[in-house]
Amino acid sequence: MRALIAIDWGTSSLRGARLSVTGQVLESREFARGILTVPPGQFEAVFNELFGDWMAAPHALCLISGMAGSRQGWQEAPYCPCPAGFAELGQHLLWLQADRIALVPGLSCMNPDTLNTPDVMRGEEVQLFGALQLAERNTATLVLPGTHSKWVQVEHGRVTRFSTFMTGEVYALLSQHSILGKTLDLNGTFDETAFLQGVDQSQQAGSVLNKVFAVRTLGLFERLSAAVLPSYLSGLLIGEELRHQNVPPAQGPVILIGSDALTLRYTLALRHLGIACQSRGAEATWAGLHALATKLTNKP
Amino acid sequence: MRALIAIDWGTSSLRGARLSVTGQVLESREFARGILTVPPGQFEAVFNELFGDWMAAPHALCLISGMAGSRQGWQEAPYCPCPAGFAELGQHLLWLQADRIALVPGLSCMNPDTLNTPDVMRGEEVQLFGALQLAERNTATLVLPGTHSKWVQVEHGRVTRFSTFMTGEVYALLSQHSILGKTLDLNGTFDETAFLQGVDQSQQAGSVLNKVFAVRTLGLFERLSAAVLPSYLSGLLIGEELRHQNVPPAQGPVILIGSDALTLRYTLALRHLGIACQSRGAEATWAGLHALATKLTNKP
Repeated sequence: MRALIAIDWGTSSLRGARLSVTGQVLESREFARGILTVPPGQFEAVFNELFGDWMAAPHALCLISGMAGSRQGWQEAPYCPCPAGFAELGQHLLWLQADRIALVPGLSCMNPDTLNTPDVMRGEEVQLFGALQLAERNTATLVLPGTHSKWVQVEHGRVTRFSTFMTGEVYALLSQHSILGKTLDLNGTFDETAFLQGVDQSQQAGSVLNKVFAVRTLGLFERLSAAVLPSYLSGLLIGEELRHQNVPPAQGPVILIGSDALTLRYTLALRHLGIACQSRGAEATWAGLHALATKLTNKP
Repeated sequence: MRALIAIDWGTSSLRGARLSVTGQVLESREFARGILTVPPGQFEAVFNELFGDWMAAPHALCLISGMAGSRQGWQEAPYCPCPAGFAELGQHLLWLQADRIALVPGLSCMNPDTLNTPDVMRGEEVQLFGALQLAERNTATLVLPGTHSKWVQVEHGRVTRFSTFMTGEVYALLSQHSILGKTLDLNGTFDETAFLQGVDQSQQAGSVLNKVFAVRTLGLFERLSAAVLPSYLSGLLIGEELRHQNVPPAQGPVILIGSDALTLRYTLALRHLGIACQSRGAEATWAGLHALATKLTNKP
């Protein structure tokens, strides 16, 4: 096993960690150098500038996950189709420098329950395999909340299907750019009661396109204060996302992966609806890349 | 019956018509002087400037509907609670000048099927009563598509309940300000096939927060061209709105009120789902204000 330089190069941020052979984080760095800030053709230069010292170690191996492998990134690493596990990810690595620097591909799947609509992820595949390693499970429902929230089904170590929900982006658009922005006060702190009121509302019959308008009317009629309306809207949208899930209870708790602020909200909503869950944070990324490197090095 | 000056003063535009005693439009005017362009305290001055000549007629009567009666308008005309018909609207007129200029109030209702969430409209109540007059019906489901689409149930001449859907605003936000904007080409012309493909997708199980992400992936996988993706997104959202309606077929066709471009899309979607409908345009507003004036003048 060689020492690993693990890189998570996303749209808006760039994180790296130097790991021991057992997967411990020896040192980590974070930069506001997401792929959107890097001009075409400059990815190698930015990488060398920020991580060149780490790569100077003998036999250094570097695995890069995230949007660096997208069409707008360093080089396009074609999506690996589901069902896919570690073996398939390893086979689909895109080597930028032979046996030294590789891009981890994203995953794609076709969802038969929505007329074979394709879905894609980049970066989350590493996090979810890492979280499964840490939880010592190989079958689970995983949720990666965020701008584009992902619900993932893993069976026997392979992703069988997943779906993306634009929950975070729709929340940002409605609260900042729609008429609802006139009623709510984004400076308010998180209010659990209003959040769960939104979750309850989301489980009623009817469309979310109608339910979100209540953010305006509940404000107009002074039924909720401007300061708690963002929490109500958040509950409505996260609740809408949860309403359409079918989590097999026999699988054990749902695994949430993300920042504390986001996983807290999903934990509240899931428990409110009687669904058990547990959370993992940024460590999942490093665990995933380390596990992938281990499989690479151990291969015959 | 006195000659009527009918005014529809909305958020972004101001329209007026001088009507004969039988309700014929003798002359009409339209200005980009929606209430958002009028400084507080200046409504009367703007009104006199633009319609003073019409109001100089002897016994002129003016009824104003729309956002001019909102908190941000000329003066706040409190919402008239449902169930409400012409009689209730007439009783709740807010007279700015006695027996000469009145604001028509909007309607409010509490929806028991969404935990008694309030809903509101301003201006649409006049259009829907006008459309019912023109159609010679007093029981119907009416739809007023737009930024905030309204679905209204009228029974025996009274609005019993209604719901607002943020369909138009969500379409604008997603197509112009979200990640989907990178995949679609807003300069494309309306494509009926892609639109109906979106309507079909909207009727599948699952959440619209997931379905809209397909606008990105269908583009990435080159399953739909950038030029037809706006039509697909429009079909998805209008279809989501329709999916949650329960239209009693015995009531006769649904009445659509709005611009030709919008009512065409709703007509296509409704017929695709086997629901009969008919359309009315701007004439509904003048018919509604005229009918209201008639009831006022005829009252004992």
